[in-house]
Amino acid sequence: MKQEFLYSAISNNIAKLIRNNVLKAGDRLPSVRTLCREHGISMNTAKRVYLELEGQSLIESKPQSGYFVSRTHQKRLPLPGTSKPSAISSNKEPDELIRKFYLTMRRKDLTLFSMGAPADELLPLPALNKEMMRATRQLPGSGARYDELQGNEKLRQIVAARSFSWGGSLQENDLITTAGGMNALSFCMMALAKPGGVIAVESPVYPGILQLAVSLGLKVLELPTHPGTGIEIAGLKKLLHRIDLCLLVTNFGTPLGSCMPDENKKAVVDLLAKHGIPLIEDDLYGDLYFGGQRPKCCKAFDKHGTVLWCSSISKTLAPGYRVGWVAPGIYKEQIMKLKLVHAISSPTITQEVVANFLKSGRYENHLRKMRQTLQHNYHHYAETIAEYFPEGTKTSRPQGGLSLWVELDKTIDTAELYDIAIQHKISIAPGRMFTLQDQFHNCMRLCIGLPWSDDLQLKLKQLGRLATIIRP
Amino acid sequence: MKQEFLYSAISNNIAKLIRNNVLKAGDRLPSVRTLCREHGISMNTAKRVYLELEGQSLIESKPQSGYFVSRTHQKRLPLPGTSKPSAISSNKEPDELIRKFYLTMRRKDLTLFSMGAPADELLPLPALNKEMMRATRQLPGSGARYDELQGNEKLRQIVAARSFSWGGSLQENDLITTAGGMNALSFCMMALAKPGGVIAVESPVYPGILQLAVSLGLKVLELPTHPGTGIEIAGLKKLLHRIDLCLLVTNFGTPLGSCMPDENKKAVVDLLAKHGIPLIEDDLYGDLYFGGQRPKCCKAFDKHGTVLWCSSISKTLAPGYRVGWVAPGIYKEQIMKLKLVHAISSPTITQEVVANFLKSGRYENHLRKMRQTLQHNYHHYAETIAEYFPEGTKTSRPQGGLSLWVELDKTIDTAELYDIAIQHKISIAPGRMFTLQDQFHNCMRLCIGLPWSDDLQLKLKQLGRLATIIRP
Repeated sequence: MKQEFLYSAISNNIAKLIRNNVLKAGDRLPSVRTLCREHGISMNTAKRVYLELEGQSLIESKPQSGYFVSRTHQKRLPLPGTSKPSAISSNKEPDELIRKFYLTMRRKDLTLFSMGAPADELLPLPALNKEMMRATRQLPGSGARYDELQGNEKLRQIVAARSFSWGGSLQENDLITTAGGMNALSFCMMALAKPGGVIAVESPVYPGILQLAVSLGLKVLELPTHPGTGIEIAGLKKLLHRIDLCLLVTNFGTPLGSCMPDENKKAVVDLLAKHGIPLIEDDLYGDLYFGGQRPKCCKAFDKHGTVLWCSSISKTLAPGYRVGWVAPGIYKEQIMKLKLVHAISSPTITQEVVANFLKSGRYENHLRKMRQTLQHNYHHYAETIAEYFPEGTKTSRPQGGLSLWVELDKTIDTAELYDIAIQHKISIAPGRMFTLQDQFHNCMRLCIGLPWSDDLQLKLKQLGRLATIIRP
Repeated sequence: MKQEFLYSAISNNIAKLIRNNVLKAGDRLPSVRTLCREHGISMNTAKRVYLELEGQSLIESKPQSGYFVSRTHQKRLPLPGTSKPSAISSNKEPDELIRKFYLTMRRKDLTLFSMGAPADELLPLPALNKEMMRATRQLPGSGARYDELQGNEKLRQIVAARSFSWGGSLQENDLITTAGGMNALSFCMMALAKPGGVIAVESPVYPGILQLAVSLGLKVLELPTHPGTGIEIAGLKKLLHRIDLCLLVTNFGTPLGSCMPDENKKAVVDLLAKHGIPLIEDDLYGDLYFGGQRPKCCKAFDKHGTVLWCSSISKTLAPGYRVGWVAPGIYKEQIMKLKLVHAISSPTITQEVVANFLKSGRYENHLRKMRQTLQHNYHHYAETIAEYFPEGTKTSRPQGGLSLWVELDKTIDTAELYDIAIQHKISIAPGRMFTLQDQFHNCMRLCIGLPWSDDLQLKLKQLGRLATIIRP
């Protein structure tokens, strides 16, 4: 506990020095060893201090030479404001835009800033392959047998054990596996949705969540959302009486990459529970934090079993495996029945491979590397955008995840930019996709899960130039 | 065409001779070669004649000695009558029974006559393993990448090509893959169901279909069904005005194993189309025919695109792979959207393995063997039941599939038999599971997809004895 306290105090202190320009861009910071000595802290704590500051883009590490105050943070662009969706639920699905978007998603000649999953280069494919071979040889029935309804036991064990990292204390029996994360959300929403009911979500939000809600006959209420800290508690409070169900991507959700502070998570859980509103929490990006510490989940504050915690390895390991899970609290029986009825069971072999991979510790190694890559990518993106995008551009400052949200000048329409960019072999995700209302026309989402390269930078510069050109 | 005509004429003729006792049990039939010569037909046609008769249990082949009139058909038990469900849709889910049933499904100490899938021994596991290794090595992204929304192209190609065998003429683009067959049914029902609407199904019928319908808020209308030829056309006609949607397992469905004759299939398709009622056809057992010829599907008679043809490899190759598909006709857009919203995509690697396995021709070889095994199993079951089950027992005479339906004397309650059998390490599927009404209390389903052995026969005899004992 003392180390925990020291770690926050020290990193906050250094952050303040940088923000107040006492420590200047390019200044060298004390070595990890010096930091230990000066503050009487352990090496691990010292490392976490610097990881945390790196996560906030305030400092950067240079191989073999130590830590320096980041130059990026100096010229980083302003943050977009809190979103202001209408409190009247609307259902203007941007069908045409989404149709166009999916048509180009698999074109190999495009630079896919539009992607929603990490590129192959960020995934440990050879290690996964080996695990697949081993599991195929060793699994009784070779994966051809039906898996048990609740899902692979080893997988549920290790997911439960890992819940410790986000403040949870799940047991293997609390979990049900699903065919990917979206499948988990779908079961949860089907279990809880009454046609005509109202579901509250972030705004902007992942389009799949909007489509799922609409397809189940729900009305969607979009909540005012801050790009750094997620939904506004005050905004939620005002609307509570109208909400039947809430779904939040609490850690680094797409497209904003916001992360709700612990106190907000706790407040939301308490508020919703008090009003008898279940919370579906989608934590699929939680392991992709840039700082020194895995953020908590709302589920960690769940006293009544009314938080349905969903996650998967689709954004961190193997999208095509379709392995996800849910800890549905008091709704376990309903979810089990839905899984039986709609799916019988989840794919056997891919669950086994994921279970073994997670148990072996290779997952943690992989995540460490992946987080670093994503963080570096983010800095590269931020720098390039600051330099080459038109005046008036704002960006989110994700502390984890795969997405960067870019708000352009109000006069620039990203649906138009999409069409022009495609002609230049660049694909983006226009902002209008992430809402059922008339907003975010001047925004877009960029995937930072692509391998950074000179070519990629050129494409990003080109995108900035195209945005400048179409400005009226 | 001439051969087609000859083949029917000859096999019908021989069948008549056997039924009229002109040819007697144990009589040797002419060799295939002699049959060719005598009737001026090809070897293939002659073989098909005998396969067809074997499928009807009228003759049996003995290795190295030829074909003989079956002894089984002499002492085979009467067929249960056409079911007579109430025309008022009822919703008495046998929850407690189903809960108990699933609790024992994975117990390794039981003889699982209750199984709904083939035992490992009937599946080509080593060959599948090899294919899995190969696919893992060769697939770009090793199966970790999201598959395209519509599903693996190679798989859709080969499923389309194979549609020829059941009178279909599907194109690759007509198909959408799903995570197993139940998932295909679930998408179809979700696309077509309006809460409070009425769905017509066979009676008895697979419990998963009942549960799915109920969970989507549908009312279930069970149709009078003959154990040999499926639903009665006259019964359907009378109820047409009350039906919004129909779901039929047209070939060897569980539990009856009935197979609708071509003329009934055509009549049903025409009737439903005339009344604007879509038909979900579940053909998951169609490849498991015992006779010489793959039965047709309703989809083969579909002129307006209102038949949604579903199938999978869960009953023939690898239940745990979760690979299925649907040819949804005019409902393609709706099903694509549902798949996107509820699943994003299907598992990549298992689709690839199945596609390669089907393309290689190994699937046809495997099916040939599996059909033979199932057919032999059926004969063994029928013989043993005829000899050791209590008086008054009737059984279905499946011409394909995995299920045998056993009707005991009215005084015997199979829910009670279930409890007693479990104590003797035997598990069955009580008849009441296959309906939402008060019927089939004296029936049960036995899986014929277990490897036949002296031990299995002992267990089957024991089951017969237990049934005799509990008779009041």
